Amino acid sequence: MNRKERLFTPGPTPVPPEVLLAMAAPMTHHRQAAFEKVFADVSEKLKTVFQTSSPVLILAGSGTSAMEGAIVNTLSVGDTAISVNGGKFGERWGQIGKAFGVNMVVINVEWGTVVDPAQIEEVLKAHPRAKAVFTTLNETSTTVLTDVKAIAAVTAKTDAILVVDAISAIAADELRMDAWGVDLVVAGSQKALMLPPGLAFAAVGPKAQAMMKSSTLPKFYLSFDKALKNLAQNTTPYTPAVSMVMGLSKSLDAILAEGMEAVWERHARLAAATRAGIVGMGMELFSKRPSNAATSVKLPDGLDGGKLHKKLRDEYKVTCAGGQDHLKGKIERIAHMGYYDQFDVLIVIGALELALKEMGADVKVGEGVAASQRYFASV
Amino acid sequence: MNRKERLFTPGPTPVPPEVLLAMAAPMTHHRQAAFEKVFADVSEKLKTVFQTSSPVLILAGSGTSAMEGAIVNTLSVGDTAISVNGGKFGERWGQIGKAFGVNMVVINVEWGTVVDPAQIEEVLKAHPRAKAVFTTLNETSTTVLTDVKAIAAVTAKTDAILVVDAISAIAADELRMDAWGVDLVVAGSQKALMLPPGLAFAAVGPKAQAMMKSSTLPKFYLSFDKALKNLAQNTTPYTPAVSMVMGLSKSLDAILAEGMEAVWERHARLAAATRAGIVGMGMELFSKRPSNAATSVKLPDGLDGGKLHKKLRDEYKVTCAGGQDHLKGKIERIAHMGYYDQFDVLIVIGALELALKEMGADVKVGEGVAASQRYFASV
Repeated sequence: MNRKERLFTPGPTPVPPEVLLAMAAPMTHHRQAAFEKVFADVSEKLKTVFQTSSPVLILAGSGTSAMEGAIVNTLSVGDTAISVNGGKFGERWGQIGKAFGVNMVVINVEWGTVVDPAQIEEVLKAHPRAKAVFTTLNETSTTVLTDVKAIAAVTAKTDAILVVDAISAIAADELRMDAWGVDLVVAGSQKALMLPPGLAFAAVGPKAQAMMKSSTLPKFYLSFDKALKNLAQNTTPYTPAVSMVMGLSKSLDAILAEGMEAVWERHARLAAATRAGIVGMGMELFSKRPSNAATSVKLPDGLDGGKLHKKLRDEYKVTCAGGQDHLKGKIERIAHMGYYDQFDVLIVIGALELALKEMGADVKVGEGVAASQRYFASV
Repeated sequence: MNRKERLFTPGPTPVPPEVLLAMAAPMTHHRQAAFEKVFADVSEKLKTVFQTSSPVLILAGSGTSAMEGAIVNTLSVGDTAISVNGGKFGERWGQIGKAFGVNMVVINVEWGTVVDPAQIEEVLKAHPRAKAVFTTLNETSTTVLTDVKAIAAVTAKTDAILVVDAISAIAADELRMDAWGVDLVVAGSQKALMLPPGLAFAAVGPKAQAMMKSSTLPKFYLSFDKALKNLAQNTTPYTPAVSMVMGLSKSLDAILAEGMEAVWERHARLAAATRAGIVGMGMELFSKRPSNAATSVKLPDGLDGGKLHKKLRDEYKVTCAGGQDHLKGKIERIAHMGYYDQFDVLIVIGALELALKEMGADVKVGEGVAASQRYFASV
C-alpha cells in the first residue's frame, strides 16, 4: 500500500521519534545517581504540567492503576463517595469504588452531555459525609469536557476531596490543579504526554494527603504513602519503568519548552479546526461540551459506524476510535492530543470526508478540509 | 572516560539492541488486529518460557504488582498462608499478605541459606487450613535458589497452592511449572527476559484458578479474572504497555530460538564460571545454594562494601548491586541473567579482582579470570 499508517486514537497516540529514541538508550539501573537525577527532574517538571506545587507520583501501570490508587489511598470501607458516570471512564470510578467496598453515589448523566456543577453541590448536600467526588476532565468515551473549575469551587467548601481523572486531558485541556483547588489528579502516559502506555501519574494535594492518614483500604503496590516517601529520595518503592521515564524526560522537555499555555492553546486550535471540518463537511458533533483532546463525530442514522471505522483504518490507514458500549457504531472519535499539528487535522478530516462519501453519506467532500483551513487562516 | 558503561545489576539488566529498536517502532493501537496478533503470539510463547499449558497474564506494572495480584486473586481476609522469608523478596510476600488481612505464617530462614522443603511440610501440617505457600525461586537479595520442585511435591499433596516468585529467575533458572506442579508463577520483564522494567507476568494454573472463585480480597486493576477473560480475546482489560509488548515479542523469539533447555544451560555455565572466578581470586561465595541468575560475593571482614561498589561503578563503569538491609556493605551481587555471554563474565571478574586489590583485599589478581576461563574451556 502507498499509504502511511496514521494513529488518531485517543490513546495510545503517536510518540515523537525523539522520545522513541530516548527510550531506546541502553538500560541504566534505577538506584544510581544518573537515573535518580532524571527522576527528580521529571518529577519536578510534572508539577508544571499538573500546575501544582504538590508531589506528582510516577507509577508503573496503566491509567486505571492510578485511579485505583486514588481510591484505596484516601478512603475506607463503608465511606461514601460521589462519582459522575457520563461515559466509560466516569463509570469506572464507580466500579473501582464498589470493588473496594466504598458506598458510591453515582450521578448518571446522558453520555455526550456534561454534569452540572450545581448537581454535584446538591448531591454533596444530600450526602454531607461524602469524602470524595470523582470526575473525569475529558471523558474519552464521549470527548466531553467536565467543568472541573466550577466543581472544585463546590468541593472546596466541603470536607470532600475532588479527584479528577485527567488521563486523556493532561497537557491537552486546561487544568490548574492548585489554582482551581483540585485535590488529586491522575493521568496516563499514552495521551498528550506523547509516550507509550505504561506510566500512570497521581498528583496528590494537601487535602488528599491529609485524607490518606485515615484511609484503611488495603494497598501495597499502589501505596501513595510509600511512593511519597520514596519520591522524597528521588526513587520509587518498586522498580520504575526506566525506559519510559527516560522517554518522559524528553517529552516533558518538549512540552515545557512550548509552555503549558501554548500547549493548551495548540490543542484548542486543533480541536476547533477539527470541529470546523466536521461541521463543514455536513456532519454533526456528538459532544455537548467538547474537549480539546479529542472530537467525536455523530454518524448519520443508518450509517454503519463499524464499517466506517474499518474503512478509515484499512483503506486509508487512518485509525480513529469507534464508540464504546451503547455508542458502538454511532460515533467515531478523533484524537488530537499530544503529538499532532494542524496538517494532521487535514489528513483525518480528508480521510473522513472520502470514507463517508464512499459509504453513501450526505457529505460535502472538500468542504470539511476547506473549513479547517479557513479556521487555521483566521487564528 | 575510555570505559564503557556495563550493567551487572540483577534487574534492570542490559536490553539487546534489537529489542530496544523493536520498542522504538511507531506506536500502534492495542485494540486492532495487528497488535492483538502480537499479543496472542507472545502469550502463547510465554507458556513455553513458564513451561505450562496454563494462561500467562501480561500486566502493566513492576514485578510486585504480579505478587500482589497472586495474593488478592486467590485469598480472602483471615485466610492463613505460609511464606518463606530468606531475603528481601521472600519478606515481601509476608508484607503484602499482611497488608491485605491474610494471616501470614512466615518461615524465617537465615539470609543466604535455603528453606528445607521438609520444613514447609511441617508448617503445612501445623496449619492444615493454609491456603497457599509463597516462595521465591531465586531470592535476588541473596542469590539463593529455592528447591521449588521439592516444595511442589509437598504442596501437591495438600489443598494449598504453591505460588512462586520467579521474577528474577524466569528464563535463567530451571522452572517447570506444570511438570513440577507449581500453581502460580509471577515474573517480571527486566531480568532474564531482557526487557526494560514495566511488565509483570502471572501464570495461573488450574488449582490457582479454582481458588480464585472463592477469593474475596478486593481487586480491580489486578483482577486476574478480568485479565483471563480478556486474554481469551487476545487483549487486556486496561491499556497494555504496547511498546514493551513489542519488545517482548523480539526477546521471546530470541529465547525460544535458543530453546529453554539451552537457555537454562547457558545460565548454568555463566553462573558456574562466575563462581569459579570468585573462588579463583580467593573470595568466598555468599549463597549456600546459588542460583544461576546472579551470584553473590561475600566480602572480606573489614572491607568497605559500599566503597567497593562505588569503585566498580564509578571507576570501572561496572555496575553490580550491593547487599540489602543487614547485608549492606557485606556482599556484592553480580547478575548474569538474560543478555550476557561468557566474555561478560571475564569483564566482571576482571573488574572485581582489580577493585578488590586496590582496596587492599587479599586477592589473587588474574587467578579469577583464569579460573573462569579454565571452566569455560572444560565444558
